[in-house]
Amino acid sequence: MAAFSSHGRGHLNGPVVVLGTGLLGASIGLGLRGRGVPVYLSDPSPTNQAVAVDIGAGRPLDELGSEQPQLVVVAAPPDVTADVVEGALRNYPSAVVVDIASVKLAIQSELRKRGVDLSRYVGTHPMAGREKSGPVAARGELFTSMPWVLCPSEDTGPEALQTARSLAGDLGALVSQFSAEEHDEAVALVSHLPQVMSSLLASRLQGTPLNALSLAGNGLRDVTRIAASDPTLWVQILGGNADRVVKILYGVREDLDRLIGTLEDPLAPGARLDLAQLISEGNAGQARIPGKHGGPPQAYSWLTVLVDDKPGQIARLLTEIGEIGVNVEDLRLDHSSGQNVGMVELSVLPNKHDLLVEALSDRGWRVLQ
Amino acid sequence: MAAFSSHGRGHLNGPVVVLGTGLLGASIGLGLRGRGVPVYLSDPSPTNQAVAVDIGAGRPLDELGSEQPQLVVVAAPPDVTADVVEGALRNYPSAVVVDIASVKLAIQSELRKRGVDLSRYVGTHPMAGREKSGPVAARGELFTSMPWVLCPSEDTGPEALQTARSLAGDLGALVSQFSAEEHDEAVALVSHLPQVMSSLLASRLQGTPLNALSLAGNGLRDVTRIAASDPTLWVQILGGNADRVVKILYGVREDLDRLIGTLEDPLAPGARLDLAQLISEGNAGQARIPGKHGGPPQAYSWLTVLVDDKPGQIARLLTEIGEIGVNVEDLRLDHSSGQNVGMVELSVLPNKHDLLVEALSDRGWRVLQ
Repeated sequence: MAAFSSHGRGHLNGPVVVLGTGLLGASIGLGLRGRGVPVYLSDPSPTNQAVAVDIGAGRPLDELGSEQPQLVVVAAPPDVTADVVEGALRNYPSAVVVDIASVKLAIQSELRKRGVDLSRYVGTHPMAGREKSGPVAARGELFTSMPWVLCPSEDTGPEALQTARSLAGDLGALVSQFSAEEHDEAVALVSHLPQVMSSLLASRLQGTPLNALSLAGNGLRDVTRIAASDPTLWVQILGGNADRVVKILYGVREDLDRLIGTLEDPLAPGARLDLAQLISEGNAGQARIPGKHGGPPQAYSWLTVLVDDKPGQIARLLTEIGEIGVNVEDLRLDHSSGQNVGMVELSVLPNKHDLLVEALSDRGWRVLQ
Repeated sequence: MAAFSSHGRGHLNGPVVVLGTGLLGASIGLGLRGRGVPVYLSDPSPTNQAVAVDIGAGRPLDELGSEQPQLVVVAAPPDVTADVVEGALRNYPSAVVVDIASVKLAIQSELRKRGVDLSRYVGTHPMAGREKSGPVAARGELFTSMPWVLCPSEDTGPEALQTARSLAGDLGALVSQFSAEEHDEAVALVSHLPQVMSSLLASRLQGTPLNALSLAGNGLRDVTRIAASDPTLWVQILGGNADRVVKILYGVREDLDRLIGTLEDPLAPGARLDLAQLISEGNAGQARIPGKHGGPPQAYSWLTVLVDDKPGQIARLLTEIGEIGVNVEDLRLDHSSGQNVGMVELSVLPNKHDLLVEALSDRGWRVLQ
């Protein structure tokens, strides 16, 4: 039964059972333990389970005894999630069961196909992760300010939904609600497609001479950063959302074919228009991505400040910006080998740009607008 | 005739003529004027030329009189560069002529085809730019610490090459030398391919519901950042390097076709292996990109610090990191709507990671390793 805080949000009382103690499962355990919620853990790997217990993510599931958990969190790999959810609903007949896999429709469909009663089940997806994996990388704050999508089915009962909402809320996440179909379509586009494009690009770099790569700039680094992701996990994610990803890729292939045709005969009539259209359509799509604050897309103004490339300079710069009273929205560092100068690129609200350039210049900083 | 500094680098004496006063031409003028080199400017657009003169990038070309320039910098759009280079070599019979277009082989071949003597010509490519364009966006430090590639032909004389080297060096760039073919192949991969992949991805976002885009994370933002680039410029770049870009795109299409085939039947034997291979090959390619300092690829260690989302917090954090004596290699900010907490992700040399985590935790910061 969920308690309610003064501002209407439920809080978990527990006990909570976490099945699967990888990065996410152990992080959930840690976060809930930090709020005083009793947590019990289980993992097919005795080592993983022992590490999770050691870092304080919860106690071994054996110690739960006959007490009924309020909530069971299935934090298993996507390809065994349906099995584990079905088992949990059977073994804990009064508990709410949620899973946290990155794809939602395949799991819901599989459970339905097996005739499982879904009234106590909520599919969820916390959109958080790290470069590292396993319970040693776990941290209780992993979900702070990150989206956590709830995907109740038509059969999900209101108490189950409220319990899932409490879990995400207790861990500091930003809760939103999508149908499983909407979720899978959205992540196919905003998460799975970027992964595919980044991997396709990065794999082209395998045979390149290193002196060519020495010309790499921030553009290449940005586009390929997520190409460093874990193959095992992504096989399951892409496999589990294959239908929706492949539909988007048909569109990409059509555009790619058109582009190849254009570049094979770049002097043909219409070729320039075709190229301009590709880049313009990219402009239009990129402009629709919401700003970091989750608000509507906002074009920040950027300025660049040259600083000596040694500790303390950037701190001094930001201290002075704080004194000037301007909030920095984003910040990038850039410095190259053999140079004693670094560049700090700052983005601020457009109406603060000129003020900041002037104030910093007055204080002796070398500012490039 | 070039003077030589004590460490063997030449410096320009001028006069330097800059033909084309867009962002790059005006920035070159500004940078050279800042070193006391006399600069004369010309642009087909009287407005552009007047703005460039007004910001101090040089004097109008009319005022050069009969004096012979030491160097002519052709900063025209790529598709008219060969014409302007040919004219400059003819009009200034003792000057070195360089261009700064982003593609090199097409221009060199065109000049050769016309029978132009290339002994005083050097194709170059300063790899610097901004989101903004035009002379108002110009800044003399634009080239500081950025790569500047020199692509002499077999016919380029040693004095011409030395003068081009002096130009790049005087402007603070990191000079390297490639053949035109090597250059165009390298930028097809490290610059033009990322642009194409980013634009292809971003154009898929055009029709998406905004609530799907609300799930966008840093992955999508990173991969699509350069999709905001200028269509007019990119039409000329892609058109001018079509042969080499299209060859790389054949490889991308092959991989994409294989991926589509796999996702159309994700339960087929071998499907999982195919998907794992795509991601693994991306891992391998990504790992070859050199670090920001131009050194060998280096895996920095990341840590995350939670800070209150108000001015001054990040400055205080960086001040304390400076006191601890650790150099920050890269920094990302992340904060979401409705939350009073922001996350600062810092990368440091791996051997400094544990020290910094401990020292910051001791000082009361909330650190997530």
